[in-house]
Amino acid sequence: MKNSILKDLIQKNNSKIVLLVIDGLGGLPIKGKTELEAAKTPNLDRLASIGSCGLSEAVASGITPGSGPAHLSLFGYDPIKYLIGRGVLEALGIGLKLESTELAARGNFAQMDKKGIILDRRAGRISTERNKELCDLLQKKIPSLGDIKVFFKPVKEHRCALLLKGKDLAEGISDTDPQKEGEKIKEAIPLTKEATQTANSINKLTKKINEVLKGKIPANTILLRGIAKIPHLPSFQEKYLLHSACIATYPMYRGLARLVGMDILSTGERIKDEIKALKENFQNYDFFYIHIKKSDSFGEDGAFEKKVSIVEEVDTFIPEIEALKPDVFVVTADHSTPSLLKSHSWHPSPFLLISKNCLPDNLPCFSERACCQGSLGKFPATEAMALMLANALRLKKFGA
Amino acid sequence: MKNSILKDLIQKNNSKIVLLVIDGLGGLPIKGKTELEAAKTPNLDRLASIGSCGLSEAVASGITPGSGPAHLSLFGYDPIKYLIGRGVLEALGIGLKLESTELAARGNFAQMDKKGIILDRRAGRISTERNKELCDLLQKKIPSLGDIKVFFKPVKEHRCALLLKGKDLAEGISDTDPQKEGEKIKEAIPLTKEATQTANSINKLTKKINEVLKGKIPANTILLRGIAKIPHLPSFQEKYLLHSACIATYPMYRGLARLVGMDILSTGERIKDEIKALKENFQNYDFFYIHIKKSDSFGEDGAFEKKVSIVEEVDTFIPEIEALKPDVFVVTADHSTPSLLKSHSWHPSPFLLISKNCLPDNLPCFSERACCQGSLGKFPATEAMALMLANALRLKKFGA
Repeated sequence: MKNSILKDLIQKNNSKIVLLVIDGLGGLPIKGKTELEAAKTPNLDRLASIGSCGLSEAVASGITPGSGPAHLSLFGYDPIKYLIGRGVLEALGIGLKLESTELAARGNFAQMDKKGIILDRRAGRISTERNKELCDLLQKKIPSLGDIKVFFKPVKEHRCALLLKGKDLAEGISDTDPQKEGEKIKEAIPLTKEATQTANSINKLTKKINEVLKGKIPANTILLRGIAKIPHLPSFQEKYLLHSACIATYPMYRGLARLVGMDILSTGERIKDEIKALKENFQNYDFFYIHIKKSDSFGEDGAFEKKVSIVEEVDTFIPEIEALKPDVFVVTADHSTPSLLKSHSWHPSPFLLISKNCLPDNLPCFSERACCQGSLGKFPATEAMALMLANALRLKKFGA
Repeated sequence: MKNSILKDLIQKNNSKIVLLVIDGLGGLPIKGKTELEAAKTPNLDRLASIGSCGLSEAVASGITPGSGPAHLSLFGYDPIKYLIGRGVLEALGIGLKLESTELAARGNFAQMDKKGIILDRRAGRISTERNKELCDLLQKKIPSLGDIKVFFKPVKEHRCALLLKGKDLAEGISDTDPQKEGEKIKEAIPLTKEATQTANSINKLTKKINEVLKGKIPANTILLRGIAKIPHLPSFQEKYLLHSACIATYPMYRGLARLVGMDILSTGERIKDEIKALKENFQNYDFFYIHIKKSDSFGEDGAFEKKVSIVEEVDTFIPEIEALKPDVFVVTADHSTPSLLKSHSWHPSPFLLISKNCLPDNLPCFSERACCQGSLGKFPATEAMALMLANALRLKKFGA
């Protein structure tokens, strides 16, 4: 891995790097224009003329990444080497500090019929409040399973995290979430010999959950996925000598940032609040990761115009970030989420880097198609951190 | 490594390939134009319209390569696998034929104060003549160190090579060059157990050198770096079936070419002399590597206009190279050296390939930004040789 040479090249200085991730930014045209092309983004367009642009690819051509691998890749971790269970991300995102022996799973409250066929994988997106009530009930009724302690933790809407603490818990268990409506909830299957006992426990737990939730329509079961332990990742401090902070409104992204050792800054829910958090903490860190969630959510909903308006809203805050004079400022995405597809996609992400050491590409605007003409070309997202560090003059020369 | 399939595809024919390396060619804009954009290069611009263009990257995004890895990469050798000590390059460059048991180091005559603090890492760039006098003196006073024979070899200005011949000499010794002025000369530290004895010898040698050079201000010590043995690299003949020759004025590049088995042609110091050497030897080889040094030197000095004038001078000789009718003619660089940064940089290098089998890109000129639009895209420099061989019809089809 080319990234392995980085560690010997890192040097410290006083530079500041801001990485603004507009989740799911890249799109596909509807009526001739992508969301980013349709959006009025005078500030991003101006930056595209004085910055270096390109297209970053999270995993490989044609591969649609989940949020975990897409972010890890952008943070410079090989997303194939470092596979992070969704359950781990969910648990970290709500501030749980996992031990390396514990098992976490992402849960969806869901609705099933009497035969166990899933009617709604998200239980009509029940309110976060209802979610809390149900988690409290489950916690009370199922505090443990044999000598395994069980914890039910509400996240947002239909999402929850399940935590198992006990001896000899093993990874390597298949999801119970069928990922499709109209199918039955799946049995948890051990993928290794060591996981047999733990898979049995998961299946017993599902039965107990179904008993407790009986009649609580639309939330009468929980679908589990990403049943996993916490992996060890070298931190941003170890890997890059960067004192780093995360500004994100959604728990999973905070969890991911915590996993790579970032401090999690408190912020309100609006983009305005996130920018305020950046300003208030700007002197205290070397590196800021700012995450904008709603562009992805609206992409997943197929809400083209709403995604456009989020991008336009982000654009209005660009001058405030520039006013802080970061040495390196990157605007990009973790992956594309075209409204046309209503899902994440494999298309590479537009990438824009500003520093006084970059080649200005003189591009007319910031868009997927303009970025094709940029000097950064199409590159693996795992190399994005090296580009940022280089532009911050934080990398020494390789070899004589 | 994709390059591993090459060896089975190589075929011989009578084609001739010319690789013109304008060292450090790529730059960054000052007043809106890079050095290459500011230079009047009617011939290169004409070639950009009929040739294929792109951007070649020596190591990876954001990585600034030294001259060694940058050249190896362009010659098709993985620069991370084949790490070459600077001392080895320096020694080869002045025509020394190293045995695999011998150790070589790059030396800088330098000035230190009474406490051993380095005041000038280049001893005011003493003349090559003074360098020779001091090397002669050191050779006379320190012909050996125990049973290790020591050789002091002058290079240019403040640069010298140190050779150690003896039993059980080991690699894996840190530099004594602190790389910064205002710091003390460093102890050589063994990086492996086997290197302990050799590191001790290096430290004894430094003491003896300091005794001999006492009072010879500004050259009263020698800083050592890149203490290494010669690695084994497959030659151009083995790897590509190419009978190849190097035309370069600066020792290190000749050394590098010798390492991959090129014949070193004699040449005068001027670009004109190098072109003359090409003409006189054109019938005798399949492949020519021509190295233009001063573009890099002026880049490192921050001398924008002087770098421009070197590029313009090179341009005037393009028709003479074309007149030889090489089957493949490539103009590129090993790495970028923007005058703005006064150093090598991580920016990819403009790359231009002419052959009767290439796709003409119809670009308006030869520049970093024009090359972004070229059909070769951004590609690893390690793939450049395959492009040249393919255009010379020296590669068979892969698979049926």
